[in-house]
Amino acid sequence: MAWTNRRAQELRERAEQVIPGGMYGHESTVLMPAEFPQFFSRGKGARLWDADENEYVDFLCAWGPNLLGYGFEPVEAAAAAQQARGDTLTGPSEIMIDLAEAFTGMVSHADWAMFCKNGTDATSMAMVTARAHTGRKTILVARGAYHGAAPWCTPRTAGILAEDRAHVVHYDYNDADSLADAFKAHEGDVAGVFATPFRHEVLADQHDALLEYALAARALCDQTGALLIVDEVRAGFRLARGSSWSALGVQPDLSTWGKCFANGYPISALLGSNVAREAAKQIFVTGSFWFSATPMAAAIETLRQIRETDYLERLVGAGRRFREGLQQQAASHGFGVRQTGPVQMPLILFDDDPDFRIGYGWVSECLKRGVYLSPYHNMFLSSAHSEADIAQTLAATDEAFEALKKRRGSLQPHPALSALMAGH
Amino acid sequence: MAWTNRRAQELRERAEQVIPGGMYGHESTVLMPAEFPQFFSRGKGARLWDADENEYVDFLCAWGPNLLGYGFEPVEAAAAAQQARGDTLTGPSEIMIDLAEAFTGMVSHADWAMFCKNGTDATSMAMVTARAHTGRKTILVARGAYHGAAPWCTPRTAGILAEDRAHVVHYDYNDADSLADAFKAHEGDVAGVFATPFRHEVLADQHDALLEYALAARALCDQTGALLIVDEVRAGFRLARGSSWSALGVQPDLSTWGKCFANGYPISALLGSNVAREAAKQIFVTGSFWFSATPMAAAIETLRQIRETDYLERLVGAGRRFREGLQQQAASHGFGVRQTGPVQMPLILFDDDPDFRIGYGWVSECLKRGVYLSPYHNMFLSSAHSEADIAQTLAATDEAFEALKKRRGSLQPHPALSALMAGH
Repeated sequence: MAWTNRRAQELRERAEQVIPGGMYGHESTVLMPAEFPQFFSRGKGARLWDADENEYVDFLCAWGPNLLGYGFEPVEAAAAAQQARGDTLTGPSEIMIDLAEAFTGMVSHADWAMFCKNGTDATSMAMVTARAHTGRKTILVARGAYHGAAPWCTPRTAGILAEDRAHVVHYDYNDADSLADAFKAHEGDVAGVFATPFRHEVLADQHDALLEYALAARALCDQTGALLIVDEVRAGFRLARGSSWSALGVQPDLSTWGKCFANGYPISALLGSNVAREAAKQIFVTGSFWFSATPMAAAIETLRQIRETDYLERLVGAGRRFREGLQQQAASHGFGVRQTGPVQMPLILFDDDPDFRIGYGWVSECLKRGVYLSPYHNMFLSSAHSEADIAQTLAATDEAFEALKKRRGSLQPHPALSALMAGH
Repeated sequence: MAWTNRRAQELRERAEQVIPGGMYGHESTVLMPAEFPQFFSRGKGARLWDADENEYVDFLCAWGPNLLGYGFEPVEAAAAAQQARGDTLTGPSEIMIDLAEAFTGMVSHADWAMFCKNGTDATSMAMVTARAHTGRKTILVARGAYHGAAPWCTPRTAGILAEDRAHVVHYDYNDADSLADAFKAHEGDVAGVFATPFRHEVLADQHDALLEYALAARALCDQTGALLIVDEVRAGFRLARGSSWSALGVQPDLSTWGKCFANGYPISALLGSNVAREAAKQIFVTGSFWFSATPMAAAIETLRQIRETDYLERLVGAGRRFREGLQQQAASHGFGVRQTGPVQMPLILFDDDPDFRIGYGWVSECLKRGVYLSPYHNMFLSSAHSEADIAQTLAATDEAFEALKKRRGSLQPHPALSALMAGH
């Protein structure tokens, strides 16, 4: 069936009436090429169908939450069994304790857990805990890093006051000197340091964390009593079966988790070591659905899958095949592409593409051939991405490179992206 | 079967190890009498079973979310059907548009909707929208009102900075002069005014909104260009099938919704009128699970139940029978009780009970007789509270009054509550 977008257009027009701008937040397609569908009808495994019933191999994975495949049966069964007993009740189920025990048992630095809903809940709780623990104000955050959409951290500043981020100070990721300078500039007042497991920003090559930087962060926190916070919301459980920095041998004091640890069910978490337990007791944080049992049941089963199956090796294997295939295709078609970050969370940018028109043109060609990619944000693979999915994907991407070559002279920059870049 | 708490004790000890303080947030029983169970095993209709399998008629209703009964079949069926298609995907389902159309069709002031997860998400988005709309800073909030647990509003201040609430200014609820004074004191800088539909604070009698106050809030906002925000998170759809202030004839510019509009499935919302649409487009807010389809399917069915059934009349009827029965019992046993607020969201306080020991003693006696009540927070009824549930409840409360009379001389104040009150 040929790719169509008739229904997509109707839906956009209806949405425009009752949702500001027709859509908002990270799943808005405002920065995607115009062809990208805004509304989807269903998902299964690594596949996604849009409202026009176009089928895609999906490399966004719900922007992270899909770790084991959409509708992954063992997780669905665990969630359904709990739902039949009760989800949102007057208190938590005892499985909240089971989940806290399982999670802290997998993340080496963690002695305790607090569950919440949004990744932003977890990062905001980490910030408040660090301030409560130290009695200090300053929070160090890497320049350009995304830690959520609350007033203290949201990347767009409409409606945000200077006071909301008065004590949020920036340093350069992977730069131990820059971090040390920030500590010096706020000597005696640093409450906590945020670090993502690797550098994953939009429209820029990704970078692994340097050991020197991670060790410096730990040492500076040890010297000053500040808390080291690793924000695992985006990367957690795609790099390792526990803390993403376990390979570096660096233990944070707090870590923040979200997106994928219940395979799409809504739950996030702040994990902490004993040093921060008293502070965590003092803060007041809550939400109407934070203690709901169904996402906890889903999380318990997802964590079991993480511990007991080869999901990670399959994820990495699929990512490697995808990356190697693309590299060959790009070279044979005469395109320079930079594939950065872990293979299981790839970002693909084109050489000599300052306004990203080549990358945008390529993902548009891929979309119409049944492959859903992002031209500006890191992508996510799931363990449901089979060899057949990758083979089908590579057949489509090869055609897309060929089509792109023919359109190269007529590609145009994306209007909303250009406006955004001009605003920087 | 006699009431027991053996398992409850074991669970508390395990929880203490892996959750700070053993539990946190609004569903913590730290301010409840010691007998109150922290963990529950299941719920159905208006009934709840704790981890020791003690059965209760539940008057907390998950602190609000249970509007139609736990496991209410039509909502469960709608959610399960959507779950099979997909919940958290790379974009929303088109039912997000259906939900926005249904919701704005029911709330007279609303032209658009944005969905989120926590009540706090909705109130924080309202604050940011009001600031983006006006370019001003000051947000007026009634003294003692609860609008969430973010740094700008959380009632406990560990880890919170003065800057987090630098421009949050308090006025007295139901006092038009106090509100006018706050406008005057911050002339030209008021971005928005928060008001709950009625005054629902802990450990204090509840009060209906005075018409004079609601009209003054509207007029002051009209005169200054500030936005009027009615926070419906707690009361929404228990007072009316649309805006809680529709009976007063006062329309807000923004309203915030949560807890019960998907009967326990996790979703909240900011609704707005056209005047605030452009500002709402500009703010950046999002969350990993905000666009998940299953809670939206549950919400669509819950809203249909709200529109098309007598849920509200049954809720009010059950609340009235409960209140009238209690009033007679209290009088016949020689206790003065004050039952305030709408019958469907009752708060029960005892006369001559400055440290609340009588109220605490009474709810303890009720608990052991299978009735779960709060001694300090407003309660919630559901439309699943049947005549039989209320009759069984009143039989238990009558015995509880009798038992209380005998224990009256030996009642003690609650230690954590006393500490909290001393801290004020």
